[in-house]
Amino acid sequence: QERIPADLGTAVNICSMVFGNLGKGSGTGVAFTRDPGSGQQGVYGDYLENAQGEDVVAGIRNTLQLQALEQIDQQSYGELMSIMETLENHYRDLCDIEFTIESGKLWMLQTRVGKRTAGAAFRIATQLVDQGLIDLDEALTRVTGAQLAQLMFPRFDDSSDATPIATGMSASPGAAVGKAVFDSDRAETMAANGDQVILVRRETNPDDLNGMIAAQGILTSRGGKTSHAAVVARGMGKTCVCGAEELDVDLKNRRFVTRGGTTIAEGDVISIDGTSGDVYAGKVPVMPSPVVQYFEGTITGDAIDGGQPDELVLAVHRLITHADEARQMRVRANADTPEDAERARRFGAEGIGLCRTEHMFLGDRRQHVEDLILAAGDDERQAALDALEPLQRADFVGIFEAMDGLPVTVRLLDPPLHEFLPDFTELSVRVALAEERGEDAGREQALLDAVRRLHESNPMLGLRGVRLGLIVPGLYGMQVRAIAEAAAELKAAGKDPRVEIMVPLVGAVQELESIRDDARKILAEVQQSTGQDLDALVGTMIEVPRAALTAGQIAEAAEFFSFGTNDLTQMGWGFSRDDVESAFFSRYLELGIFGVSPFESLDVEGIGRLVRIATEEGRAARPGLKVGVCGEHGGDPDSIHFFAEVGLDYVSCSPFRVPVARLEAGRVAVASAGSDSR
Amino acid sequence: QERIPADLGTAVNICSMVFGNLGKGSGTGVAFTRDPGSGQQGVYGDYLENAQGEDVVAGIRNTLQLQALEQIDQQSYGELMSIMETLENHYRDLCDIEFTIESGKLWMLQTRVGKRTAGAAFRIATQLVDQGLIDLDEALTRVTGAQLAQLMFPRFDDSSDATPIATGMSASPGAAVGKAVFDSDRAETMAANGDQVILVRRETNPDDLNGMIAAQGILTSRGGKTSHAAVVARGMGKTCVCGAEELDVDLKNRRFVTRGGTTIAEGDVISIDGTSGDVYAGKVPVMPSPVVQYFEGTITGDAIDGGQPDELVLAVHRLITHADEARQMRVRANADTPEDAERARRFGAEGIGLCRTEHMFLGDRRQHVEDLILAAGDDERQAALDALEPLQRADFVGIFEAMDGLPVTVRLLDPPLHEFLPDFTELSVRVALAEERGEDAGREQALLDAVRRLHESNPMLGLRGVRLGLIVPGLYGMQVRAIAEAAAELKAAGKDPRVEIMVPLVGAVQELESIRDDARKILAEVQQSTGQDLDALVGTMIEVPRAALTAGQIAEAAEFFSFGTNDLTQMGWGFSRDDVESAFFSRYLELGIFGVSPFESLDVEGIGRLVRIATEEGRAARPGLKVGVCGEHGGDPDSIHFFAEVGLDYVSCSPFRVPVARLEAGRVAVASAGSDSR
Repeated sequence: QERIPADLGTAVNICSMVFGNLGKGSGTGVAFTRDPGSGQQGVYGDYLENAQGEDVVAGIRNTLQLQALEQIDQQSYGELMSIMETLENHYRDLCDIEFTIESGKLWMLQTRVGKRTAGAAFRIATQLVDQGLIDLDEALTRVTGAQLAQLMFPRFDDSSDATPIATGMSASPGAAVGKAVFDSDRAETMAANGDQVILVRRETNPDDLNGMIAAQGILTSRGGKTSHAAVVARGMGKTCVCGAEELDVDLKNRRFVTRGGTTIAEGDVISIDGTSGDVYAGKVPVMPSPVVQYFEGTITGDAIDGGQPDELVLAVHRLITHADEARQMRVRANADTPEDAERARRFGAEGIGLCRTEHMFLGDRRQHVEDLILAAGDDERQAALDALEPLQRADFVGIFEAMDGLPVTVRLLDPPLHEFLPDFTELSVRVALAEERGEDAGREQALLDAVRRLHESNPMLGLRGVRLGLIVPGLYGMQVRAIAEAAAELKAAGKDPRVEIMVPLVGAVQELESIRDDARKILAEVQQSTGQDLDALVGTMIEVPRAALTAGQIAEAAEFFSFGTNDLTQMGWGFSRDDVESAFFSRYLELGIFGVSPFESLDVEGIGRLVRIATEEGRAARPGLKVGVCGEHGGDPDSIHFFAEVGLDYVSCSPFRVPVARLEAGRVAVASAGSDSR
Repeated sequence: QERIPADLGTAVNICSMVFGNLGKGSGTGVAFTRDPGSGQQGVYGDYLENAQGEDVVAGIRNTLQLQALEQIDQQSYGELMSIMETLENHYRDLCDIEFTIESGKLWMLQTRVGKRTAGAAFRIATQLVDQGLIDLDEALTRVTGAQLAQLMFPRFDDSSDATPIATGMSASPGAAVGKAVFDSDRAETMAANGDQVILVRRETNPDDLNGMIAAQGILTSRGGKTSHAAVVARGMGKTCVCGAEELDVDLKNRRFVTRGGTTIAEGDVISIDGTSGDVYAGKVPVMPSPVVQYFEGTITGDAIDGGQPDELVLAVHRLITHADEARQMRVRANADTPEDAERARRFGAEGIGLCRTEHMFLGDRRQHVEDLILAAGDDERQAALDALEPLQRADFVGIFEAMDGLPVTVRLLDPPLHEFLPDFTELSVRVALAEERGEDAGREQALLDAVRRLHESNPMLGLRGVRLGLIVPGLYGMQVRAIAEAAAELKAAGKDPRVEIMVPLVGAVQELESIRDDARKILAEVQQSTGQDLDALVGTMIEVPRAALTAGQIAEAAEFFSFGTNDLTQMGWGFSRDDVESAFFSRYLELGIFGVSPFESLDVEGIGRLVRIATEEGRAARPGLKVGVCGEHGGDPDSIHFFAEVGLDYVSCSPFRVPVARLEAGRVAVASAGSDSR
């Protein structure tokens, strides 16, 4: 799996030994130049007299705090302190040190840059800046987007006196509280009744999907970070602790027992910490993240602002501010409502890269969509569209207003129409039962006919996206008109809407040309009738492999590209995420077929190659073409580095991921500036 | 759509006029140097005295046969005959000539190489060879695979005195006979009762899919060659006449009336000719194609063989024999049974490029597959596999025997397991009704649970192909063992089986490595236990876009590539053929988004680019890598030219398409040799 050739041979190290177990004047210890948990400066470490290294690590003998060495052997202690200072100044970072004292003589065994918690990473980076050891650019390389993301999850209250009853693997971060439930169907039922539940299983399999969806979090006693539970929970963004082997899960009696003897029965409340892997009995209070409060603006990161800011918040503030100064790549958010748009703006988004219009067809409006689908002729269809248009317009007014002065990319309707109708199988059963009972199925029968007509074997590869726009007369036109009128209304009110109209699922330039020509006509009409200049761009998603392969042609008709890397991954790998993530991804990760799910981090070799081809050939055909990405990969650190390397103009991600993307975009800029100049 | 810039301007031709309508000594006519219908040499054409060209073409005045001109104006006739000979010798082909006689003086208006029927094309090409006007290479360029395909459809008996009651467009070739039916549901019901039906509609839409599947042929009164009926029928390979506008289709009264007044009511038998567009009342006798009889070996194409061969069959024989001598690209067939393999061999296949193993899991064996899926543990699963293995082995023995000495590429199981189970919706309805009636659903309930567990939103992008092989323990191993044992059995009997094991749906080299390593182990075991040398190759389909994009890596583990261009097209365009062909392809063809369905002819710009990348990079990584194609495109003339240009080693297609592929591969070779040397 690691592709190491078997004939490379084995390396041998030869070194002399020193002994910490030669009696009272001997000993061994580990030392940190700073606290790896909090980042605080000071003397941290453990010392054990008359012992060797394994004794410290194994935890079978109680160690002393490192400070105690000062009393035991002042000379060695002084020497150690001086060496630690030398090491930290040399490495300009927290050092993790192992040492041995043999009969009063101090020997250094090894040192390395030490591991630390996410919070410590931010604090240490800014402390080192304040000490003049590193500059802000380098500080930025010392923290990661993944660490920032960790700091943004809610956490259990540190001041709570809860002690874990077990600890498993931190498979998917977050803090979840709920009633323990031992099978997925019951979890689903209880959740439907308004209970918050934690699904507890030995291990999960594809049959548990409904329970996992229903639960606040998932706890398993078997399996590692690539187990089914872990992979699927991460895909869902749901808290998960897995492989808590000290739990004896008794599915038959619906309970588990910890090694310490605590029994949790079905319905008992438990709390699980997906960041630490800890499991608690009862409800542990959950604290909001101060970092999120900072981004939300409820607490300030600026020391000048009067009060005493939290040191962590101040560190985050300084580093993200520097990242913003350094980065070339813009960061936008995916947001479909004014509320999301406002939050995204607070979180630093510089526009909306993906405003989906699907939700605007749900709720009360589903009726109009049904009317549209069941329309007997042009008049009925137009009536349904006419009913939808003012609702859509009001949606867009709200979103454009929230993002005033910043670009908003609106994606025309993407999903197949049957998604707005009832499920085929459920409806078939209802109608069959009604017939069996001699009841009149009425509208349900008409609906069933429509659902059957629109039923697709593979909806992801069916009548959706631009295909819908070309086949359903007036649909995209209605949306474009609503967008144009919303923009004109705001312009008239002195606002500055910046609209980008995005056509989904384009595979051939001719599709785009057809929609673009219609859109341009409608934009001109609205401009004419309102007297407002509408400088809307018309562009396309690149999410079908063929679009990437013919990007040079498509760029002739597109004013911008936005990669839909989720669909590009699905089609490029031939994966339907809903089907495969639960069905076999954990096995694939175990087999090493991939190291990380290609839905988490972009598969650079395959899908990334399409991104690179499309960017290069699109820009060759239309110099200065604006190119971004609006898939979930836009918020993934590794993927962001790749997108920056390819030279994308922006990434767009969920509002909560915007700070992560800002930080990573800054880190890329600093790293590439560094590699250029050194 | 044609991408002609609007600023190109319009060309103007200026020429002097002659008049054929100056009285009795004047006239006009058309002449062919050979009969464009049969290819026979002689004087063919029409003449009209005192007339201009439009009068001949319009058909409002009755023309004379060209021979009559000899009586009217012998001098002009003699001059015309001499010019016709000059023209044919110059063009070395059938010429289509227009002339006018103005007051006794012959003027030639224009000539061009004339259109001809498929049969005439073959006859004329070989006649010209016999006359020494062209050589066999050039003769090969005068016929096409599409023409040969036309000659292979069954036809209505020419000697029948049936006269068409109407003529529409020849939308999809073949000869179909059945009862006229005017709605799709009834067509489905009648077909289920054993009736042969012709679906008659004004036009079809996606709701007619069930009727089109059930019918022998489709007849519509509206729409052209890109109408829904035409596109879908061609996709199904089903006879279709569309746009027969002289038919008045009265759906309400379930009948149609022709312009001539014939009324056909539902249930009346009609016959439709998809090659000519003719519609007949009643049953017209269908004749087998003599060209197919030739390939089947029931009639001979060799004149030396004694009897007098059909001139057409002899022409086909000479040209296909020459194509075989000329071509570099091999032709294989897709065949899953010994019968198909034998026919393919008769039709000239040089191996099997795709032997699907799906059908081997159907029929009586479905029970074992159900057992495999419902297996409660390893033992039950192994028992199901053990029951399947000898059946599979017997299948392979038959196929390898039929293809003795030629390569057979066996594809390991590809479709998702739920394809072997009942339909989810139908089963849900049955179980719900059983419950409603208080009956015990029994095994159906257990099946429903399994179907629900295996249910996929997008089965094409789900748990199938190599994924199945990696997730279901023992499945691929059982298949490989059956293949190996079958080969060993034949070797022991002195036969020469040449086995290629093909892994489907590979997207990453690691998938292939894992299966290959297992397969190699099993092959070695069987070799060991039987003492027979098994030189089986292990290779992969290239049908997932990512596989094409990482072909260099995959070639390290693959001993051959075979492009599955059908899936590559589906995934590359993001199209599910079942869903999109009926839903919107006709509209797309109308809009000019593509000129031909990408399932008929390979989309060279998009999907072809993947084929090119994978071939080049695969061969760069493994020089001499054997590369073929086994999608339906392997039998499409345009696609074959592209595959030859890319340098594939072989194409594989359905047995009936093998002669077409042989001819086209020969044509490519002759054309490229021509362009090299001239």
